[in-house]
Amino acid sequence: MATLKVSATLKIPPHVPSPEEDSEQLRKAFQGYRAVLLWTLDSAQRDAFLVNEATKRLSSNNWVIMEIASTRSSIDLLNAKQAYQARFKRSIEEDVAYHTSGDLRKLLVPLVGTFRYEGDEVNTTLAKSEAKLLHEKIAEKAYNHDDLIRIITTRSKAQLNATLNHYNNDFGNVIDKDLETNLEDEYLKLLKATIQCLTYPEKYFEELLRMAINKTGTDEWALTRVVTTRAEVDLQRIAEEYQRRNSIPLDRAIANDVSGDYKSMLLALLGHDD
Amino acid sequence: MATLKVSATLKIPPHVPSPEEDSEQLRKAFQGYRAVLLWTLDSAQRDAFLVNEATKRLSSNNWVIMEIASTRSSIDLLNAKQAYQARFKRSIEEDVAYHTSGDLRKLLVPLVGTFRYEGDEVNTTLAKSEAKLLHEKIAEKAYNHDDLIRIITTRSKAQLNATLNHYNNDFGNVIDKDLETNLEDEYLKLLKATIQCLTYPEKYFEELLRMAINKTGTDEWALTRVVTTRAEVDLQRIAEEYQRRNSIPLDRAIANDVSGDYKSMLLALLGHDD
Repeated sequence: MATLKVSATLKIPPHVPSPEEDSEQLRKAFQGYRAVLLWTLDSAQRDAFLVNEATKRLSSNNWVIMEIASTRSSIDLLNAKQAYQARFKRSIEEDVAYHTSGDLRKLLVPLVGTFRYEGDEVNTTLAKSEAKLLHEKIAEKAYNHDDLIRIITTRSKAQLNATLNHYNNDFGNVIDKDLETNLEDEYLKLLKATIQCLTYPEKYFEELLRMAINKTGTDEWALTRVVTTRAEVDLQRIAEEYQRRNSIPLDRAIANDVSGDYKSMLLALLGHDD
Repeated sequence: MATLKVSATLKIPPHVPSPEEDSEQLRKAFQGYRAVLLWTLDSAQRDAFLVNEATKRLSSNNWVIMEIASTRSSIDLLNAKQAYQARFKRSIEEDVAYHTSGDLRKLLVPLVGTFRYEGDEVNTTLAKSEAKLLHEKIAEKAYNHDDLIRIITTRSKAQLNATLNHYNNDFGNVIDKDLETNLEDEYLKLLKATIQCLTYPEKYFEELLRMAINKTGTDEWALTRVVTTRAEVDLQRIAEEYQRRNSIPLDRAIANDVSGDYKSMLLALLGHDD
C-alpha cells in the first residue's frame, strides 16, 4: 500500500489579505484569463463570441455589435457569421434584430446584414447627390431617416468616404460636427460612431482606448477587446493615433494603468517580447 | 487575284411574311436567345444578372429580388452577391436599397441582407410567442410592423415553419389566408409571396408558372426565369405541384403554349432529350 504523503503547500502569507484585497486579486486574475481566452479563439470565433455576449440581456452592448459590423472586412464579417451559426445554431442577424428595437434596430440590422462592396471605384455624381441628401436630413434633424440609414449601412467605404468629403466641401462642416447636437441620445451617438468606424477606424479605437484608460478604474473589458481584436490588424496604427492625441505611448499608458498577468498579456499583444 | 463569287442565297419565301409575322418570329428567336443566354451563365452569375435587371428603373421588379433572396440557400445567395460585386462593382444590398423605398425597402433590404441559419433546430417557446406576435400584428393590420418584418426576414426557414404551424394551430387560420385582405396592395402581395417562398417554394413557383402560361400571350420572361433557375434545383417537384393543381403535365402545358427553339430549349431543361 502506498502511503499518502501530504506536504504543506498552503502557507499563511506574511501579510494576510483582506477580503477586499482577495477579491481584487481574483478579479485581476480573471481579467487576464479573459483576455487569454479571447486571444486563444481565432478571429471569427472571437467576433462571434463578442457579438453573442453583446446580444444577451445582461451583457447587452450595441456598440460592440456596431464596431464588429463596421470595422471588419466583408469576408471577416462573413466568417464571424459562419462561426456564430456553428456555435450558437442561430444567425447573427436574427439575434441582433431580436435584441434591438426602434431606431437602434433600424441602424444595426442592415449594418450587420450588408455584404459590403470593397472595391475603390467611386461614383462622383452619386457621392455629390448623397452628400446633399445627408445634409438635408441632418439639417431637418431626421437622423433616423430611411435614406440616411441606407447610405451609411450599404455604400462601400470608398463611396461613403467620397460622399463625406463632398459633404465637408459643399456644406462647410464635417458630418461629425453636425451630428454633435445631442450626445445624450444613444442612437445619435451610435450613428456618429458608426460613421467613424466606417471611415476612420483607428480614430474610433483611439478614442475608445482613451476613455477606457482614463476612466476611474480602467474599463478593462473595452481595453481587452480593442487590444485582442486589433492586434493583428491595425493596432500599430491605433497606437500611433493614440500617441499623437495623448502625448504618451499606448504601451506606457496601459502599463501605468493595469498590472499583473493581465498587463503582461496586453503588452505582449502590443508587441513587447518580455 | 481571287475572284469574288457571289451565290444567290437570298430567296423569296413561297409565302411572304407580313411585318407582324416578321416581328413575331424575331421576338420568338430573341426569347430563345435569352433563355439560352441565362442558361449559359452559372447559377451565381444568373442570379446576379436577374437582380441587377430587377433593380434598374426600366426593368424594375421587386418580385424577382424577393424570389432570389428567399428561395436560394444562404451560400447560393452569398455566391450571387460575390458574382454581382465582381460584375457590377457595387453590392446587391446598396442597389436593392437604392432602388426601393418605404415598406418595400423595409422588407427587401433585410431579406437580401440576412445570411440565414439553415440548421433544423427549432425553439418551440419562441415559435409560440412569435406566432402570437404575428397574429396580433396581422389582426391590427400592422403588416409593416418592425417585429413582423424581423421574424419573416431573419428567422431560419425551419424556425419560421414552426412559427407558422403554431399560428395555424393556435389561431385557426393559415397565415396566408389572414393576409388575403387586400391584394391590391403591392407590399402585402409581396409579403405573402415572401412567406410562401420561404416555406413552400414549389407552390410559389407553380403559381407563377400557372399565371405565366394562362396569360393571354404567355409571360415568357417569368416562364424562362423559373425554368432556367430551378432546372437543377427543384423543377421536378415544381412540375409535380403543377400537375396536381392543373391536371396537365407541365411539359405539355408549356409545349401547347410556346413554339420553335424557345420551346425546345425549355423542354430540354425540363428533361426532354430530343
